[in-house]
Amino acid sequence: MYEVNALPPGVAALPADERFMTLALEQAARGLGRTAPNPPVGCVIVQQGTVVGRGFHPRAGEPHAEAFALRAAGARARGAVAYVTLEPCSHHGRTPPCADALIAAGVRRVVVAALDPNPRVSGRGVQKLRDARIEVALGVLGAQAERQQAGFRSAVVRGRPWVVAKYAMTLDGKVAAPGEANGAVSGPEARGRTMRWRDELDAIAVGSGTLSLDDPALTTRGVPGGRDPRPVVFDRRAASDPHARAWRDGAVLVTAPDADAAAHEAAGITVQRAACLPDALRGLADLGVGSVLLEGGPTLLSAFLAQGLVDEVRVFLAPKLLGAGLSPLSAPERPMHGAQAVRDLRVETLGVDVLITGLLNDIPRI
Amino acid sequence: MYEVNALPPGVAALPADERFMTLALEQAARGLGRTAPNPPVGCVIVQQGTVVGRGFHPRAGEPHAEAFALRAAGARARGAVAYVTLEPCSHHGRTPPCADALIAAGVRRVVVAALDPNPRVSGRGVQKLRDARIEVALGVLGAQAERQQAGFRSAVVRGRPWVVAKYAMTLDGKVAAPGEANGAVSGPEARGRTMRWRDELDAIAVGSGTLSLDDPALTTRGVPGGRDPRPVVFDRRAASDPHARAWRDGAVLVTAPDADAAAHEAAGITVQRAACLPDALRGLADLGVGSVLLEGGPTLLSAFLAQGLVDEVRVFLAPKLLGAGLSPLSAPERPMHGAQAVRDLRVETLGVDVLITGLLNDIPRI
Repeated sequence: MYEVNALPPGVAALPADERFMTLALEQAARGLGRTAPNPPVGCVIVQQGTVVGRGFHPRAGEPHAEAFALRAAGARARGAVAYVTLEPCSHHGRTPPCADALIAAGVRRVVVAALDPNPRVSGRGVQKLRDARIEVALGVLGAQAERQQAGFRSAVVRGRPWVVAKYAMTLDGKVAAPGEANGAVSGPEARGRTMRWRDELDAIAVGSGTLSLDDPALTTRGVPGGRDPRPVVFDRRAASDPHARAWRDGAVLVTAPDADAAAHEAAGITVQRAACLPDALRGLADLGVGSVLLEGGPTLLSAFLAQGLVDEVRVFLAPKLLGAGLSPLSAPERPMHGAQAVRDLRVETLGVDVLITGLLNDIPRI
Repeated sequence: MYEVNALPPGVAALPADERFMTLALEQAARGLGRTAPNPPVGCVIVQQGTVVGRGFHPRAGEPHAEAFALRAAGARARGAVAYVTLEPCSHHGRTPPCADALIAAGVRRVVVAALDPNPRVSGRGVQKLRDARIEVALGVLGAQAERQQAGFRSAVVRGRPWVVAKYAMTLDGKVAAPGEANGAVSGPEARGRTMRWRDELDAIAVGSGTLSLDDPALTTRGVPGGRDPRPVVFDRRAASDPHARAWRDGAVLVTAPDADAAAHEAAGITVQRAACLPDALRGLADLGVGSVLLEGGPTLLSAFLAQGLVDEVRVFLAPKLLGAGLSPLSAPERPMHGAQAVRDLRVETLGVDVLITGLLNDIPRI
């Protein structure tokens, strides 16, 4: 099996490789939330230790990262090293193959973070470069790149979006006081980070309970150049107010096959009917949604967890004890040894709060 | 007001002071859990940059830290600097005043981490040294020292023990699965750390529910040279099994004034009657308990929190999501903005778990 973190024998990573790949990942990040159904990709061209070109894929239909970077580098690309966060494509899509462009530009070495899971590429881009006698190193910062590409990978490999559950709870595990709609749990830095995630993920999902309790706008606020994620409301009975704030352009109502959603349809809302959550997620992927930020509430979150559909969790811990209150998850019932493990844990302090993130499912590879 | 972190004007801390005070704090830590009603204190004597004597107070009735350190230093104490984690005593107790001993030994400078809150000392030890023309620096690593002395300070200033609530919960805030007595939440490193705390705190407290569910031993296991904390069981109706494992020598039953505790008394258990939790804590302080590790369960913890009696919290977060389950706290009810703040947060990864500690009440000073 291909291990993205292990370089193939005989292909050594240079000390500078991680540094330049970090720059390429930063480039790629600029496309997050904008490229679906394409992946976010970044590229950096380095000539004798100096960056001579940078680029990222801004959105589907526009040129790929390599094209922008090669254009910026011009003649300085000859004999240079190209750092790409995802394997260069080998097939003719809406743009010509990037592997061909790199070959034509005369780069001598290509460093790739992760292989493309798309069966039309998947190793063929690398093979094409090697056939042209270009040295290729694979897997530099591969895990980071795969995490950045989780939405694209999930849609391509599993046919459903990558689901990120986000909640903020007190140090005694409460997301809200009893009967309280929305008392602020975490501080301004945590809310700022949440806004960045809204900017980076394709869609934001809430349940009908949250919609009627809070009437949330589900927009991205305070992020320079930010854009709003696509609102998705899970409302089995289509009983939610079709004039709630969440129903802006592109909003999706996910409801039962037999629900009466006439009022929502009349209001111009996209209605997606599904008998179960996996079907609903497949439907969202068909709409071009690669990643979903699941922002509540406990009922929706519990339903996703029960079916193993939470891929990643991002938890803000607020330094306070509440006592009685609402838990972030209230189902399913299982013994402690049956709890779902969270891996690749990252811990960070953010203002007064602590942010803990981790994965419940593997990021899809091939 | 005296600020332990602020040195008085004109008295500068030297760069080496924090380093040597750290050694003195390490000495003091060796007495943790053994010195009540006295404080844990450490002392290091430094002659021209070299440590020539170390000492700590091992238990009440034995010599103080300064006496051990001066004895080790011998004639090398003359012209030396003494680092003491607590202001040297100025009064004749079971041992002669340490301030006098330092003067007699001829030290030229004394660095003190924190003032003694005991009204019989409280500044007089420092004054005595200054009257003898010894230079005194105050407040070096003062906050750390005060935290180490929290039990002593609490008993002296407030007449009740310092209460440390400890629990382990999942990333969705659950301490146990529904109906489950004791499924392991956290990993071996977290359990090892808990054992160290049992060794360091004077007493360990549980409620009658935990006693009957788990029949816990409440002992210190796997700590070299460790000793067991005094078991305290809160059991208002005195209905717990008087032959449970917790009832070893020194164990205390805290019960209502009118409860029938004849069986417990017959079993040789110390019975302490109190009408309310503050009374119970005062009674424990009278028994020489300066610090209590509150290990459960949710009912007892909630009662302490409701009355503002939790001074410090130590929470292990296990990287897993459970779904339904028991919350660490289930009362009192209050709005989110009325939650009790946790300050001086420290975050640490420990094996697979994350440890978060913080203070709810100030460490008593004077």
